[in-house]
Amino acid sequence: MAAPARRKRTPRTAESMAKSQREISISEFFTKNRHLLGFDSPAKALLTTIKEAVDNSLDACEEAGIAPVLLVEIRSHKPAKLGIELASVDTPEKKKNGNGRATAANGGGKNEERYTIIVEDNGPGIVPAQIPRIFAKLLYGSKFHSLKQSRGQQGIGISAAGMYGQLTTGKPVTVYSRPGAGNPAHRVQLQIDLKKNEPQVLVSEETIWEKDHGTRIEITLTGSYKRGQHSVDNYLEQTAIANPHVHLTYVPPKGEQVVYANATADLPAESREIQPHPYGVELGILARMLKETKCRNLNSFMKEEFCRVGDKTAEQIFLHAELPPRKNPKRLVQDDIQRLLDGIAETRIASPPTDCLSPIGEDLVMAGLRSGVEADFYTSVTRPAAVYRGNPFQIEVGVAYGGELPGDELARVMRFANRVPLLYQGSACAIHKAVLTSNWRSYGLQQSRGALPTGPLVILIHMASVWVPFTSESKEAVAHYPEIVKEMRLALQEAGRRLQRHIRRRAREKDAAKKQSYIQKYIPHIGDALQEILTLDDGDRDEIVTVLTDTLERSRKL
Amino acid sequence: MAAPARRKRTPRTAESMAKSQREISISEFFTKNRHLLGFDSPAKALLTTIKEAVDNSLDACEEAGIAPVLLVEIRSHKPAKLGIELASVDTPEKKKNGNGRATAANGGGKNEERYTIIVEDNGPGIVPAQIPRIFAKLLYGSKFHSLKQSRGQQGIGISAAGMYGQLTTGKPVTVYSRPGAGNPAHRVQLQIDLKKNEPQVLVSEETIWEKDHGTRIEITLTGSYKRGQHSVDNYLEQTAIANPHVHLTYVPPKGEQVVYANATADLPAESREIQPHPYGVELGILARMLKETKCRNLNSFMKEEFCRVGDKTAEQIFLHAELPPRKNPKRLVQDDIQRLLDGIAETRIASPPTDCLSPIGEDLVMAGLRSGVEADFYTSVTRPAAVYRGNPFQIEVGVAYGGELPGDELARVMRFANRVPLLYQGSACAIHKAVLTSNWRSYGLQQSRGALPTGPLVILIHMASVWVPFTSESKEAVAHYPEIVKEMRLALQEAGRRLQRHIRRRAREKDAAKKQSYIQKYIPHIGDALQEILTLDDGDRDEIVTVLTDTLERSRKL
Repeated sequence: MAAPARRKRTPRTAESMAKSQREISISEFFTKNRHLLGFDSPAKALLTTIKEAVDNSLDACEEAGIAPVLLVEIRSHKPAKLGIELASVDTPEKKKNGNGRATAANGGGKNEERYTIIVEDNGPGIVPAQIPRIFAKLLYGSKFHSLKQSRGQQGIGISAAGMYGQLTTGKPVTVYSRPGAGNPAHRVQLQIDLKKNEPQVLVSEETIWEKDHGTRIEITLTGSYKRGQHSVDNYLEQTAIANPHVHLTYVPPKGEQVVYANATADLPAESREIQPHPYGVELGILARMLKETKCRNLNSFMKEEFCRVGDKTAEQIFLHAELPPRKNPKRLVQDDIQRLLDGIAETRIASPPTDCLSPIGEDLVMAGLRSGVEADFYTSVTRPAAVYRGNPFQIEVGVAYGGELPGDELARVMRFANRVPLLYQGSACAIHKAVLTSNWRSYGLQQSRGALPTGPLVILIHMASVWVPFTSESKEAVAHYPEIVKEMRLALQEAGRRLQRHIRRRAREKDAAKKQSYIQKYIPHIGDALQEILTLDDGDRDEIVTVLTDTLERSRKL
Repeated sequence: MAAPARRKRTPRTAESMAKSQREISISEFFTKNRHLLGFDSPAKALLTTIKEAVDNSLDACEEAGIAPVLLVEIRSHKPAKLGIELASVDTPEKKKNGNGRATAANGGGKNEERYTIIVEDNGPGIVPAQIPRIFAKLLYGSKFHSLKQSRGQQGIGISAAGMYGQLTTGKPVTVYSRPGAGNPAHRVQLQIDLKKNEPQVLVSEETIWEKDHGTRIEITLTGSYKRGQHSVDNYLEQTAIANPHVHLTYVPPKGEQVVYANATADLPAESREIQPHPYGVELGILARMLKETKCRNLNSFMKEEFCRVGDKTAEQIFLHAELPPRKNPKRLVQDDIQRLLDGIAETRIASPPTDCLSPIGEDLVMAGLRSGVEADFYTSVTRPAAVYRGNPFQIEVGVAYGGELPGDELARVMRFANRVPLLYQGSACAIHKAVLTSNWRSYGLQQSRGALPTGPLVILIHMASVWVPFTSESKEAVAHYPEIVKEMRLALQEAGRRLQRHIRRRAREKDAAKKQSYIQKYIPHIGDALQEILTLDDGDRDEIVTVLTDTLERSRKL
């Protein structure tokens, strides 16, 4: 071992290091790591804010059994002044734009402006006491602790959007909410205390609102409004595709108002909340559940805290674990817990119920694709539910091919998770990986190694789950759990085979049509030749030509 | 607007929803979102744990000016029993392995076992009072609040590794630490309280340790040890490439011990801590800094809390902002803060200092590549420092080409951030994007659309920064800030042009050799022909052949 070489410059000791060690608040953490939440560029910040507000509105409406009617509005303010962009440390340049002001340093550009985002719904509203924490406290919400398909899950998004607005413009968040015609509406203005991660209420008052029930949020922020693939426009269009039950009015900062009318009056089948499945539980979690349960004995603990455990299954588990069913859950020591876990592993337990999931459905996936993409072949596949880490999930795939789609570009992949379009971080996503690692050549398409297939192709993939494992808090890409990628590949294979049949049929039809036109061209000459050889009259010759033409026609139809 | 359609099944109201809304603790959050921290599969969990421990050890040694001597050991235990794998909800199958036990459900497979990870360093040690929070509290540390190049930055990693061990095996973390020969060594056993995110100390005692100073951590977890691209072996090999000053002994669970001796006795130039640059600050952050500062007036506030602000720059800022320099920072209202920000934007301020960065350097990048990759062409480029969102950063690129590298595969990309190899989530990384969007065809390589280049090529990219913007807490991929991708592309272009010259020269040489061999073949025949035409004797003929051969030889050399 080399002797430790001491150096001259300010070496630190354990004592001096100890002085700088301290706690980091969750809001400080996300302020510095704002890209984790989807606020790494002004264009993305605008989209993320709208996405979080729309997610919340749709979840609330569906939970309350209300067909969602939404308003999304982006109001433009005058440009904000920001820091000068530094191209390189060696050549700091002051870039000026038209009116002589410095351009933005904040990862942005000339399009960076102030906007007010407004999202209003006809949902069940929020009781006044909960408004501050829901909109101005990170890690606060109702969905994190429940196993149920919903768009929101972490209790971060909308508060983070407000925090971003506060950071970039200093403006508070304004919320209007009314929990029903019998209750008054409230208007609340909020800021977040970044050090404590607690809401600061600036205004809280009763107000008059024409709506019987619903919530409206207004956030002012520095953003950038753009069109194209990653735009709010595209996000809302895809939202309408995956949520045909939603009526959505969109007022962009410039241009005409857009209305996406609901294509169906039916709400999606409501997803039920489930208990965790025993196969998904780990030692540490099990230990905590045992400690916290209100059940007095192991038997009721297993039956009440998990799904798919009835009397017989519980009996089997205890038999394998060699544990008495009447034992107090709080009395289990670590060895007992390990034995319980082993007992679970050795017992055959039915898969989790799937009514916690609410897939879009094959028909509506097709209808959505048809409404958004002009092609001449469509197909869709909804896989049976599967399980990763104890969480049920379900994959749906839609494929559109041909028609007006460009034939010489890479396929377009539309990604959805719990009906929410995913626009960023495509290449980080399990969906992307599943498409990339499928063999599209075998379905008659071109594909370079390590690339998406090339051709007039749009692929839609939807993952529905009680818990979508996103690669970051901004919920832009699905993590690469092997079970999930596998299900996606299976769905793609099925759709791919159907596409292959279509492509082959097309090729055959084209081929046959070509052959037929050749033969058709020669039939009159054959007639003439036969007339000459067999010395037929013109009537016989014409009859032969007709018979030959008919035969050809019939054989083609076969 | 469509009338809200009420549904039958359990519609919820604002009141019933309010009951389920509650706070989520940061440790609960990361338990459920463990893939954010790099614990989504057993193989990755093993790697992440070692990576976090090694990062901490190297940071501590370097801060204390000690040449790092590390031991990394993986000890295998007998296989753990886990839940049955569910392939699909419709067909639950009980898969058995050799000894009749159920296989793992936990995203794993047959290779999932229990391991104890040991990482030991000769660093400055940790004072006993800090040990519990450093190793068993998420979001606690010294690096988050400082702007300085270091491997760790978030105060999450090592506590998360301990938490994962605790969740999967129930075993506590064991830490040995000694802050110097004059101090006793301590042995501490820790668990993390998942609900409160606070350490629970099971054992804390003085102990005998042969080391004068250093820290040793032992974590027992469920993991999977594999070889290949994403392996611990590969990670340590790449760590040695990017950290030639480190002496590392590696004891794998099977096979021989590996020693990576340090290639240099010099520690990297120490990176200094800097204050934030005024151009990187936003309204909300500035407001908070003004509120919290100890400075009594704006002038000293600007000069002390920011880098690159001296008397003249401060004067300019206050002139542009129309604010008095003697004003009390705590008295600024929001309009003043906006004016101060505008004043900063309108003032030319020098770029941040770059001695906060510690790049590997062109020579050591080349040496590292040479030691790890067999090729016949090497080059490296270290770009000047640049800035994103006020944070200085620096890009280095190394390229190896030809030799023993496979010619018909996609190029291999080695990614590093602050000298740490990044093995997962390649396609999510700005590094990947920079390689993908560079035009490798113009440098004489093959490249399909949307794919990496094909050829006998290894590309190394290192990003050094006071704050690397990772796409998730697991620090596996760099976020796509445009300034960062741009610098990477510039570095790749420079390396690409050198590679192009090499490829062209090779092609020319090959071409010339081919021509020469043709001509050489005909020289004797030309001699014979001339002899016949000019009726020369054999001596003359031989002389002509010699002269022609010499001329050819000379022209080739030119």
